[in-house]
Amino acid sequence: MSRIVRVAGAQMGPTQKADSRAQTMTRLLALLEDAARQGAQLVVFPELAFTTFFPRWLMEGAELDSYFEPSMPGPETEALFSRARELGIGFYIGYAEKTPEGQHFNAALIVQPDGSVLGHYRKVHLPGSVEPRPGALYQQLEKRYFEYGDLGFRAFRAGAAWQNGILGMMICNDRRWVESWRVLGLQGVELVCIGYNSAAYDPNGGTSEDAALRTFHSTLAAQSNAYMNATWAVSVAKAGEEDGSGLIGGSVIVNPDGVIVAQAKTLADEIIIADCDFDLCRQGKDKMFNFGAHRRPEHYTAITARAGVVEPASL
Amino acid sequence: MSRIVRVAGAQMGPTQKADSRAQTMTRLLALLEDAARQGAQLVVFPELAFTTFFPRWLMEGAELDSYFEPSMPGPETEALFSRARELGIGFYIGYAEKTPEGQHFNAALIVQPDGSVLGHYRKVHLPGSVEPRPGALYQQLEKRYFEYGDLGFRAFRAGAAWQNGILGMMICNDRRWVESWRVLGLQGVELVCIGYNSAAYDPNGGTSEDAALRTFHSTLAAQSNAYMNATWAVSVAKAGEEDGSGLIGGSVIVNPDGVIVAQAKTLADEIIIADCDFDLCRQGKDKMFNFGAHRRPEHYTAITARAGVVEPASL
Repeated sequence: MSRIVRVAGAQMGPTQKADSRAQTMTRLLALLEDAARQGAQLVVFPELAFTTFFPRWLMEGAELDSYFEPSMPGPETEALFSRARELGIGFYIGYAEKTPEGQHFNAALIVQPDGSVLGHYRKVHLPGSVEPRPGALYQQLEKRYFEYGDLGFRAFRAGAAWQNGILGMMICNDRRWVESWRVLGLQGVELVCIGYNSAAYDPNGGTSEDAALRTFHSTLAAQSNAYMNATWAVSVAKAGEEDGSGLIGGSVIVNPDGVIVAQAKTLADEIIIADCDFDLCRQGKDKMFNFGAHRRPEHYTAITARAGVVEPASL
Repeated sequence: MSRIVRVAGAQMGPTQKADSRAQTMTRLLALLEDAARQGAQLVVFPELAFTTFFPRWLMEGAELDSYFEPSMPGPETEALFSRARELGIGFYIGYAEKTPEGQHFNAALIVQPDGSVLGHYRKVHLPGSVEPRPGALYQQLEKRYFEYGDLGFRAFRAGAAWQNGILGMMICNDRRWVESWRVLGLQGVELVCIGYNSAAYDPNGGTSEDAALRTFHSTLAAQSNAYMNATWAVSVAKAGEEDGSGLIGGSVIVNPDGVIVAQAKTLADEIIIADCDFDLCRQGKDKMFNFGAHRRPEHYTAITARAGVVEPASL
């Protein structure tokens, strides 16, 4: 048996603060058209795909508000939804969500080829800080601008167009946390969709980790967690230099053995593509990672009992 | 600051069923001497290091019993303990444990350079089956011969000879399960010691995974989980052809960035060695993987609530 869905990752090059929404939409539509021409049935865009990675700037009021979507689709995003429906292609996209009640989330949607929303996710693992780092030119203010996601890690059963596959979502930093993957794995996930904006270096001048090491970490997290949960994964960057702050590329599609089957070569707008056979998940799910046969939750209690570290006492 | 301990992995080539305990002890002592000559302070031996990987054979009674240690050290293992103490070198070693009450475990010990036992571990993630596979020449009967480990994943604070480092233990299959690593990570682990016997291919003739893929999986699990828990790891094989059943090699020492710093090149007895600075764990533990600041256990409940998969319903 095989249950094949052709999946594209739509890596984006940088989006500057001064770029207009219309400019960025033109790029999104070009990537969508390119993926559709190559026969993709699902295209995965990055985190916060409609704008620059704005949490690096300290802002407030109307300026900050301009980065958020009060509805999806809305006037500035509708063109992507309608063109995808015309092309019969679905997508994952990350965006900044503002709810009618005034809550803010770093969010993502998966939209099926018929235009229906399959799933909605709000980022759980927010990095950064609430308060700006004094004297730093570049900030990481996700904990200031967003509330912690309140929807958990839900897996969604897709329709027939996507072979009734089980899909899950993460956003950026979530992919480094094994718990995100395992909660999806415990729902039988067959394809994990991830968008990210990850620093290539410390834009404030620190030198502890370079772009090669950070790209290795991004790839390692996707490969290993795909393997250990016997799932496909597509992990897609916004890449390159945004207003003097660098982002890694390294977008990948990974199979359930943890093997990279497609990988971006640039730091620019670029489509990667692979035929993902969801039935290739069965080998891992039925044998090595047959959770029901082999997991021992009675020894995992610390994982849910506390957030932080408790070291053993000295002798 | 730096807190450096020189760590060796003592990969072993195959041990045949017909090999005597004395022959194997000679090899263990030679590896110990070699590691000590190179200045190692801790040497990590494989899983079930004193014998062949006997769970591949269906046995009972006195034959089966001969593979188990009723005490540690005992008459057939004492030479390793006494020589290590003389050399002032500590070790991790895997063995088959039989308790005074008649329980059986796939176990490991860490012994410090002064001869004191730092920690005792009993394998939690037992692969294989209770009942023999009918008609198969080679079995995997760990679930038949051993009880599930009942000591959990405890981390142990070492003495001054090992820089007061925090050490943890796994055995073989445990290393593929993110929960093993995370429970140790939640205790601030700085060095995870692992011994393994992992099939290089299906000795009964299946062809789904070859030795290269299986070695990749072993390495991927060690690298990724070391990175995601900001810990050193030393993962050590018994390798090569044991009575017609092949085992992968690929022993590695991995730093807290997930980067391999030493790797075995053979499928034979071979020492790998690295200076492990436990303070290199701080970068990860204090920033990216600052668990207290970034983990969200309220969204991890499925991990401890159940062992197996519950799929989402079809639409």
